[in-house]
Amino acid sequence: MKVLFQSADADAQASLDLLARQLPQAHFDLWPQAGGEAHDVAVCWKPPPGFFRGRRFRAIFNMGAGVDALLQDPELPAATPIFRLEDAGMAEQMEEYVAWAALGYLRNMDVYVRQQERAEWKQLDPRPRENFSIGIMGLGLLGQRVARYLHAMGFPVRGWNRSERGIDGVTCYAGEAGLSKFLTDTQMLVCMLPLTPETQGVLNAALLAQLPRGAYLVSIGRGLQLVEADLLDMLDSGHLAGALLDVMPQEPLPADHAFWRHPLITVTPHISAQTLMEASMRQIAEKIDAFMRGESVSGLIDRNKGY
Amino acid sequence: MKVLFQSADADAQASLDLLARQLPQAHFDLWPQAGGEAHDVAVCWKPPPGFFRGRRFRAIFNMGAGVDALLQDPELPAATPIFRLEDAGMAEQMEEYVAWAALGYLRNMDVYVRQQERAEWKQLDPRPRENFSIGIMGLGLLGQRVARYLHAMGFPVRGWNRSERGIDGVTCYAGEAGLSKFLTDTQMLVCMLPLTPETQGVLNAALLAQLPRGAYLVSIGRGLQLVEADLLDMLDSGHLAGALLDVMPQEPLPADHAFWRHPLITVTPHISAQTLMEASMRQIAEKIDAFMRGESVSGLIDRNKGY
Repeated sequence: MKVLFQSADADAQASLDLLARQLPQAHFDLWPQAGGEAHDVAVCWKPPPGFFRGRRFRAIFNMGAGVDALLQDPELPAATPIFRLEDAGMAEQMEEYVAWAALGYLRNMDVYVRQQERAEWKQLDPRPRENFSIGIMGLGLLGQRVARYLHAMGFPVRGWNRSERGIDGVTCYAGEAGLSKFLTDTQMLVCMLPLTPETQGVLNAALLAQLPRGAYLVSIGRGLQLVEADLLDMLDSGHLAGALLDVMPQEPLPADHAFWRHPLITVTPHISAQTLMEASMRQIAEKIDAFMRGESVSGLIDRNKGY
Repeated sequence: MKVLFQSADADAQASLDLLARQLPQAHFDLWPQAGGEAHDVAVCWKPPPGFFRGRRFRAIFNMGAGVDALLQDPELPAATPIFRLEDAGMAEQMEEYVAWAALGYLRNMDVYVRQQERAEWKQLDPRPRENFSIGIMGLGLLGQRVARYLHAMGFPVRGWNRSERGIDGVTCYAGEAGLSKFLTDTQMLVCMLPLTPETQGVLNAALLAQLPRGAYLVSIGRGLQLVEADLLDMLDSGHLAGALLDVMPQEPLPADHAFWRHPLITVTPHISAQTLMEASMRQIAEKIDAFMRGESVSGLIDRNKGY
């Protein structure tokens, strides 16, 4: 079996080495060093334009959960199955990230951090956990894990998904019809949706205005889901009390961007779920193995849905 | 039954009203308005010098968990039983506060917040939750609750207590003999000890040096347990990576204090467990009721131990 390996990350060779150790029977070529030979499968991450030109693969394995960038390549072979990375340590990290946000906002830690800057010793009224409801938008594998974790921590959790989902202890809403009801009582909205034509710009004024006054936003899906000007308006009007953003329309976020300096915005550099290279390469090796044996492989992309 | 009510807080009358509603058969006097009449019991919070002069009570009910200030009053009647507030919403708040600290330090959120100040987009290496162990010093009612909560969240949790304690899933150490072992593998030390002559200054260089390099300190017991200069040395030498302090030797923390401006110190204004007045007054009413009926009452202070 011949594998063409491509990664936009700086440590491509290290990742390839990890994968090769898991698949000792395979031959690996690292793009772009590899010539025009035919390969059975591609393992790739953010391939540049032209990567697919003149190539055919039996399957493509995406080294991340999101395939929005990949699907925009006009030269992507139309019929080739694409498999994405599932979890591989990402769910655990997202649980932690969202739980940190929920606890911090619940307890006004963002306000205390700002008070420290001016040496201000002032207690705010406590609010009980059972009144601080967390709303998860996007109940895929990761969204479900986060919802369950927050529920186990004693938070009231509600979820919204395009299609119906059921999670023990979590109030679930679905589709356009369920969106307003979902938003009305959500104190902290967490966007975990995949990026598709429908979710681009979904975090806009019309949606955010349906949250109760003083709500918070946590954005960990994709940067293009957020309408930046609308968020700034909502914060400046006092409708939203704070936002924690891990994904940006442009990454890295330019140094002169308003988000960096806004007192109610916390910026993190796309770290809510960092790829854990060893776990990821182990999972991709297992997927390739299963595919080559003709077994069913999970994580198949539905191109109509876009994820 | 006659109750003398005293509170150093601004909203003393509001607290008294809440308590009076729970004990409709009792007569209340609010100190210092009340004259020299005899009272059956005192309900007090940080009574000033002279409060106990010439007074006798059958019991004293303390409107907080810590009695360190009360026990220092030389006029405190020697034989009168003292009962303290237990939990009353404090455990839930402490769970949240410590969990926020654990998740934030685990995920380097303190570093990302500092990076934001200089618009720096830089990802740090992730570290797995299972390698980030939380060490709770002081396994009373509150410490046990916090230990269980963090354990349920998937953190490795260890505990230390003066006397032996057993908590499911938590590695427990006891006494002087167990202290070094407890500290050696603790990534985040949480001090929840009561303030006694033995615990004053317990967070000193000798103890902190036994934590592994890069460890964190969370101080939510009492401010006088911390040797300030030792903490600053440990942070400046790089032995400790950060400290979250909720209690100070002097409260409010003076505006010119070094803690406010230290980049590795987060200061909160004694809010890790704020008294929830309604729950507290309900508990104290139940304790008074039980005491007057001759039943056993929990939360009795052992003056030899100091808590």
